[in-house]
Amino acid sequence: MFKRVCVIGVGLIGGSFAKAARIHHLAQSIVGFGRVDDLENLQLAKQLGVIDEFYTDITSALESTDCVVLATPVASTQRILSLLKPFWTSDCVYFDVGSTKGNVMDAAMHVFGEVPDNFILAHPIAGAEQSGVSAALDDLFVGKRLIITPLPNTSPTHVQNVATCWENIGAIVAFMDVKQHDSVLGATSHLPHLLAFALVNMLGHRDEKEDIFHYAAGGFRDFTRIASSDPAMWQAICFANKNELLPLLEAFKMQLTQMQELLESDNQAALIDLFAYANTARQKFLQQTELST
Amino acid sequence: MFKRVCVIGVGLIGGSFAKAARIHHLAQSIVGFGRVDDLENLQLAKQLGVIDEFYTDITSALESTDCVVLATPVASTQRILSLLKPFWTSDCVYFDVGSTKGNVMDAAMHVFGEVPDNFILAHPIAGAEQSGVSAALDDLFVGKRLIITPLPNTSPTHVQNVATCWENIGAIVAFMDVKQHDSVLGATSHLPHLLAFALVNMLGHRDEKEDIFHYAAGGFRDFTRIASSDPAMWQAICFANKNELLPLLEAFKMQLTQMQELLESDNQAALIDLFAYANTARQKFLQQTELST
Repeated sequence: MFKRVCVIGVGLIGGSFAKAARIHHLAQSIVGFGRVDDLENLQLAKQLGVIDEFYTDITSALESTDCVVLATPVASTQRILSLLKPFWTSDCVYFDVGSTKGNVMDAAMHVFGEVPDNFILAHPIAGAEQSGVSAALDDLFVGKRLIITPLPNTSPTHVQNVATCWENIGAIVAFMDVKQHDSVLGATSHLPHLLAFALVNMLGHRDEKEDIFHYAAGGFRDFTRIASSDPAMWQAICFANKNELLPLLEAFKMQLTQMQELLESDNQAALIDLFAYANTARQKFLQQTELST
Repeated sequence: MFKRVCVIGVGLIGGSFAKAARIHHLAQSIVGFGRVDDLENLQLAKQLGVIDEFYTDITSALESTDCVVLATPVASTQRILSLLKPFWTSDCVYFDVGSTKGNVMDAAMHVFGEVPDNFILAHPIAGAEQSGVSAALDDLFVGKRLIITPLPNTSPTHVQNVATCWENIGAIVAFMDVKQHDSVLGATSHLPHLLAFALVNMLGHRDEKEDIFHYAAGGFRDFTRIASSDPAMWQAICFANKNELLPLLEAFKMQLTQMQELLESDNQAALIDLFAYANTARQKFLQQTELST
């Protein structure tokens, strides 16, 4: 499908994409690019056979490349695009894998004046608490959603290429607009991460924290699983999507205030109703998930 | 160990206790008591072999009983204690399994003037989203904690009996005072349940709720798992422990306000610190859990 894929940032996502692309014969060769301080990780990636070669020099990395994958943390997108700009060519398709899309669009606008028509904004909804190439998996994207957020000027041919590529490695491709993506992901991913970090942070500072963590059970473990995610990566995602997150946080605080009022006014019926609504809504979500995977 | 155990409320917890007690030969016979409207569940419990016999008449249920297990929802404790009062005897040990302890103590004080010295307040930290006797498991309590909250006048002999009984079915017994129990469980169990119900409730009311649940992934599923718990049971627990929950909710809202301020003021370093603190705290929790089970 591609002659030479260049993965910029060979971590969990970039590495898993490379592994899957190799297994499904999507590229004749796959190379990695990273900064000098990423050398150890790049060496490991080559050693593990995730990539054929690696470069810390962008000119060599991009030579004869017809597909560039931007898989660095979201905060670095603008820097990477600036690095790519002098070599940007219409013979190549570029896509990113960031958890937020508005900020990637803004970064491209800033660097290019407009988002190039062969730069496809994409987001695989897959991940893990672990990070780095050693955590990369062949099948990380199998059965997972890949959301593409095309812009009015985005080339349909390139969108189709990227969609086909992801479908070949097992992902289910969907299309959204940028704003809708950031709103939906803000609600279902970024906000829950913030809440999990907030809860563990709050409890970790309490006097009885030893007891708290000693007697916490399975429900707490599941609820806080995402608080074991990479702090720097999630900090960057939260800032990248803060326009969505700030009103979501406000709405959530209002929801908690409503619960406090129900508790204070002994309104048991209303609290059951609220819990029952949530219970039913989650049941529907589970059914949808089963149907769609 | 016991001649005849009477389980009041043969649901998930009461039924699992009965199953485990039978397997470990802790009683010559195990009977169930419930209200007339619980008949179907009691019949099922007998049919499944969880109990030998069932009664909807308390006099027959308590005949020759030397161990009474209160396993009804927390809100019914006072009603059950009033029902038991005329038959209360020093030849028998009584214990409950409620998720909150302060309200059980209050209920006993209300009914008896003081908490009887042979009434042991106990809480097995185990459960599931499912409820009813059909969800009961032989090994629900294996490796799980059982917290006993003895009062100054509680009989050490009876405490020891109850502790031994739970240890025999695989639980790890710990002791706390009532206030400490409700504070710790409020923080690690009741608050997370409220937050999960609150999030799903909030998202379920949004205009884009179809998309939200359609594109939500594994992190959301884990984070909201406890929102699939029984609404009536959790409403009762939240009200029973509202004195602990109200300040916890207030503290959590303050934590969210702090996060909003960090986002608004672009204080990236502080948000990383907060996330990193939570990440480390959860790691410690996981290590403790592994060590202790």
